[in-house]
Amino acid sequence: MRGFDVAEYRARVARAQSMMAREGLGALLLTTEPELRYFTGFLTRFWESPSRPWFLILPAARDPVAVIPSIGATLMEWTWLRDIRTWAAPDPDDDGVSLLCEALREVGGPVGVPSGPESHLRMPLADFERLKRASDLEWCGDAGIVAGLRAVKSQAEIVRIAHVCGIAGRAFDRVAEIAAPGVALSRVFRDFQRLLLEEGADWVPYLAGGAGPEGYADVISPASDVPLAWGDVLMLDTGAVQDGYFCDYNRNFAIGAAHGRARAAHARLIEATLAGEAAARAGVRASDVWQAMAAITGGGAGAGRLGHGLGMQLTEGLSLTAKDHTVLTPGMVITLEPGVETVPGRIMVHEENIVITQGAPQRLSRFAGPDLPVI
Amino acid sequence: MRGFDVAEYRARVARAQSMMAREGLGALLLTTEPELRYFTGFLTRFWESPSRPWFLILPAARDPVAVIPSIGATLMEWTWLRDIRTWAAPDPDDDGVSLLCEALREVGGPVGVPSGPESHLRMPLADFERLKRASDLEWCGDAGIVAGLRAVKSQAEIVRIAHVCGIAGRAFDRVAEIAAPGVALSRVFRDFQRLLLEEGADWVPYLAGGAGPEGYADVISPASDVPLAWGDVLMLDTGAVQDGYFCDYNRNFAIGAAHGRARAAHARLIEATLAGEAAARAGVRASDVWQAMAAITGGGAGAGRLGHGLGMQLTEGLSLTAKDHTVLTPGMVITLEPGVETVPGRIMVHEENIVITQGAPQRLSRFAGPDLPVI
Repeated sequence: MRGFDVAEYRARVARAQSMMAREGLGALLLTTEPELRYFTGFLTRFWESPSRPWFLILPAARDPVAVIPSIGATLMEWTWLRDIRTWAAPDPDDDGVSLLCEALREVGGPVGVPSGPESHLRMPLADFERLKRASDLEWCGDAGIVAGLRAVKSQAEIVRIAHVCGIAGRAFDRVAEIAAPGVALSRVFRDFQRLLLEEGADWVPYLAGGAGPEGYADVISPASDVPLAWGDVLMLDTGAVQDGYFCDYNRNFAIGAAHGRARAAHARLIEATLAGEAAARAGVRASDVWQAMAAITGGGAGAGRLGHGLGMQLTEGLSLTAKDHTVLTPGMVITLEPGVETVPGRIMVHEENIVITQGAPQRLSRFAGPDLPVI
Repeated sequence: MRGFDVAEYRARVARAQSMMAREGLGALLLTTEPELRYFTGFLTRFWESPSRPWFLILPAARDPVAVIPSIGATLMEWTWLRDIRTWAAPDPDDDGVSLLCEALREVGGPVGVPSGPESHLRMPLADFERLKRASDLEWCGDAGIVAGLRAVKSQAEIVRIAHVCGIAGRAFDRVAEIAAPGVALSRVFRDFQRLLLEEGADWVPYLAGGAGPEGYADVISPASDVPLAWGDVLMLDTGAVQDGYFCDYNRNFAIGAAHGRARAAHARLIEATLAGEAAARAGVRASDVWQAMAAITGGGAGAGRLGHGLGMQLTEGLSLTAKDHTVLTPGMVITLEPGVETVPGRIMVHEENIVITQGAPQRLSRFAGPDLPVI
């Protein structure tokens, strides 16, 4: 089964509307893929094309209104939305602005637009200025409503994330099939994406990693064509997607044999991960979980934070840093992602996925043990 | 070999700077993946994470300045850029805004920000407002400079696009290995991505398609789990990537046997494609190419436009519509993408990729013949 029951979307809209009432908002204007999908279930890879803007209006007390390019009409009609307004995009004279303006004036303001951390406005700035002027409405931020809602997952969402974590787990179990001394890292990356697809991923929006003696230089580089060497540490980190939800975790492997420093680093990363898991209780702050892990790793080598929220996007919501004091709530899905420097200029990073509950966190990825696996 | 020689990036910067001089701009501020990559060569899939903003300043007369999260420092140092300033993102108190503001004040305004069609600002709106206020500089659009530059490809870029078109061509040649009556469309989608990877794609950011008797309902839906049936038309449309450049074309197949209407529609689509190819000469307008194709298909069933620019993104630049009067220039890479309705509610779409030259366009995809292939 794909997507969710209508009840899931209606509950999301109702929660948003009660928060909008508290903030005195007449409407939310949403423009990005996860924002539209969160309230409608509209799922397509067509967002890869930047040519057309897409809009969703969430009124204070009515069902959402979609104002979208006509190319999306059929797919939007398959969702629960009934008020779907389309134009023939792209239109160089008026790319949906007047249609959107009319709908917003009908709904009424103030209009809240996501404007805080991690948000962006997916429409041309010139059109946004035009829209604001023509609307004669009051405009403001969304008071963090959409980000706040998305941070706490429903049971149905958690099931999705657990499912895709399982897919990645089976792919990680098969890395010995594709990685060996002499195989180019770029080949390993291509083959690992193939394994993820074979194990059930719909697509693979994210794959990073690295390889080298006793670690890698960073964790965001694309693969080079350099072949793996005996004794290298290979790391693969994936955000695979199934039914619109991401996993985000990684595995380290030693190619042929493991250096002592790499083995020690891996054991320390697992120790830090377990400390993070133990600390990740409802009511504690993101910065407390960071502290529990940083006490073991000595800080933030690697990703610059020691974990983050996860769900409809590869990363979303809180950050495990010293500065983020977001309080953990049951239903938050997060990653634990400690990093250590092994030798100057080389790091190792480990990552797992969990969900916050009323008690001990539930593991969504099958946790790795302390021994660096040799393949 | 991956990426380009430094000379390629320097030439792009020089062209931008000469256009900036004409427009009286002191700097361009760029925030999106293709904009940063175009001028620096910075290539990573990490943009999938929305958590951190990234900035590039293009000064009127100096080399570009990168203002980026520290997690990207190592990778940015491998590009030709030397002025790289980093902060520990994400920072809830100041996510790069003051560092960026300082750099912009050093460079001087007016600051042009891409604001026209297809553009968006990839940073939180609240931070953008904060930045503008603190900068004490004049702000405006970029006068279409970046889009205009990107629309005309260098020979090195055309080679990249031709290469990935070849990869997709070999994958399309193998569709009979993965598609047959009884196979779920979602399985075909997964397997086709695997074929693209096996043939050399680095990753597959886009795959769409559809299947049904005499056509499909739309061209942007994700795959359902419904099995292919004997007599269905199967369409697969991919944006695969190699070294950061996209192809974007498709193929139709008849499963087991081809209906007469589907065969006739396919032949008409090829006829329209060839008419588009014949019309696509330097100096004519996008709307002229649209006219040549629409005269055969009768209009815009399918994608709502009959083709578009292509390159670092799946779609970029001009649209083949009645309203887009962009003049074709040698070096523009475009798709020809006619669509027809076969029966009410069902369409077929065909797509090929070409580059505009001083003479006849050069084919980047190996053009399909008029006969709908039966597999």
